[in-house]
Amino acid sequence: MNSLTLFEPFKNDLKKVDQLLLERFSKAIDSIKTPTIQLLNAGGKRTRPLLCLLSSRFGDTDAKKPFELAVAIELIHMSSLVHDDIIDRASLRRGQPTIHKQHTNRHATYIGDYLFAESLAIMTKLKHSFANHQFSFTIKKLSMGEWTQYQNRYRMNDSIRMYLRKNRDKTARLLGVSCQLGAMISNADKSTQATLFQYGYCLGMSYQIIDDILDFTKPNHVLGKESGQDLIEGYLTIPTLYAMKEIDIYSEIENLFQRSLNHQSADFDSVISQIKQTNAIQQSFKLSQHYLDRALNALKKLPDRPEKETMYHLVGYLSKRNH
Amino acid sequence: MNSLTLFEPFKNDLKKVDQLLLERFSKAIDSIKTPTIQLLNAGGKRTRPLLCLLSSRFGDTDAKKPFELAVAIELIHMSSLVHDDIIDRASLRRGQPTIHKQHTNRHATYIGDYLFAESLAIMTKLKHSFANHQFSFTIKKLSMGEWTQYQNRYRMNDSIRMYLRKNRDKTARLLGVSCQLGAMISNADKSTQATLFQYGYCLGMSYQIIDDILDFTKPNHVLGKESGQDLIEGYLTIPTLYAMKEIDIYSEIENLFQRSLNHQSADFDSVISQIKQTNAIQQSFKLSQHYLDRALNALKKLPDRPEKETMYHLVGYLSKRNH
Repeated sequence: MNSLTLFEPFKNDLKKVDQLLLERFSKAIDSIKTPTIQLLNAGGKRTRPLLCLLSSRFGDTDAKKPFELAVAIELIHMSSLVHDDIIDRASLRRGQPTIHKQHTNRHATYIGDYLFAESLAIMTKLKHSFANHQFSFTIKKLSMGEWTQYQNRYRMNDSIRMYLRKNRDKTARLLGVSCQLGAMISNADKSTQATLFQYGYCLGMSYQIIDDILDFTKPNHVLGKESGQDLIEGYLTIPTLYAMKEIDIYSEIENLFQRSLNHQSADFDSVISQIKQTNAIQQSFKLSQHYLDRALNALKKLPDRPEKETMYHLVGYLSKRNH
Repeated sequence: MNSLTLFEPFKNDLKKVDQLLLERFSKAIDSIKTPTIQLLNAGGKRTRPLLCLLSSRFGDTDAKKPFELAVAIELIHMSSLVHDDIIDRASLRRGQPTIHKQHTNRHATYIGDYLFAESLAIMTKLKHSFANHQFSFTIKKLSMGEWTQYQNRYRMNDSIRMYLRKNRDKTARLLGVSCQLGAMISNADKSTQATLFQYGYCLGMSYQIIDDILDFTKPNHVLGKESGQDLIEGYLTIPTLYAMKEIDIYSEIENLFQRSLNHQSADFDSVISQIKQTNAIQQSFKLSQHYLDRALNALKKLPDRPEKETMYHLVGYLSKRNH
């Protein structure tokens, strides 16, 4: 089952989310309209709106609020993408040139602020204090995470604890909150809300770990990405961190990072090949599976609802993506 | 009475606001700490925190919440300054080089996001749905205003209605909300909240109009600002808009704007001198006085409190700034 068939039962719901976003952007002035619609049309799986809508079915079936929430969540996600791309100087997003590349950093700062403000306006209109509090805390961690990550590029002061915290702040918390607030807005009971948070959170942790494994095992030649691209760009992700515990590559990486910082040529081939020969990839798989198991345990605790099937499939899909 | 003696009775309260901001910034990572503390120390009158604290005295005297709110309001103000300076490429802020000039647009984008997120975290912690809703609406207008204004530089499609809307979005609304939420957080009655909003709003409208008049009548040679600097930079403010109704300078300004857009030399001396000879400055004074009268009327409706004296003085101070 691939991600497309996985999302199939909710295709119309996600189309509706896209439609609501499109209507919103279409009403804006031209300098907002063009780049936001382009970003919307460039794709993205709408995982956060999906999780929000799935989770909302565990409460009352209010027709409107979960969609508004799903839109607010996707807006904050888009906002963070736009500002993050400025901060880490990314050239491509969803296969298209990033907004700051197509326009300017100034323009992209503004677009991010617009998406942020729109999201906030929807959220506060929902008049749900605790939801807003959770949301703002997530935003705080989300917006702070990118800079810290970029500032720590080519630095050795990283640890597995730091790595997991970064995953939590940049990915897992928003997925968890998408579930939690979906349930909250439709008045599901508190324990269901907490369990759904756990599900989304663990899904997010696992997703990011798998992404970091695939960076080593499945280089994307279409995007011109070599194996170990994260390491080449100065990021110590989980496979490297595990490998560093097993073999003595600390000084070699430190030296390569120093060369990169000094704009000298740095050949990472040998160290990447060494990492791939360790147990690091396998250990990373285990760690991602640990989070998937926790996601499954959370699901088991939830009341029986037809939506649980899709939620199980999401775990299964990530589990298969592992290998 | 100058602005310093005016703020004197609340000096300790405003010092406490600064202290709370300083404590917050001091805990942040270095790349946040240094520029935010520098921006804090560079000055600013803390008008918004003052209005918030003054207004809070119209309700219960809770020791803590009004200060937290005042801090959140000043944070959002600082955030908008930092992103606005990126958008309109400003070099100086409070007499110091702007953050994006000292560092980069990327860094300033991040600092603005940090200030925004901190503000939001405080606001949602207060758990006051309507306050959050008002706040988010203000933020939306605030963040959108700067870009529109910059995009409309050197364009003739401006009108008094547009000018007033810009003042409302960029200045008046946040001053109004500072008062309104100060009263709201301390449980003042609804009519007091609304009247205080009116007071702050009108004060803000008047303040901005006076600023735009002074740009023509009191050039600041210390800052190297000539008379009519706003017009030279492509902004049609109220004196110019009134003058355009009285004398035929439309084509002359249009031509000068076109030359500026084409990076050709453009001599605004003659048109600025013509504007100053019309009744436009006087009419602008009248408009600012209209808002000050409305602010006074609002004050008269408020319950008697010792804080009203300072609030009257604020109107009087602005009224004198007129001439």
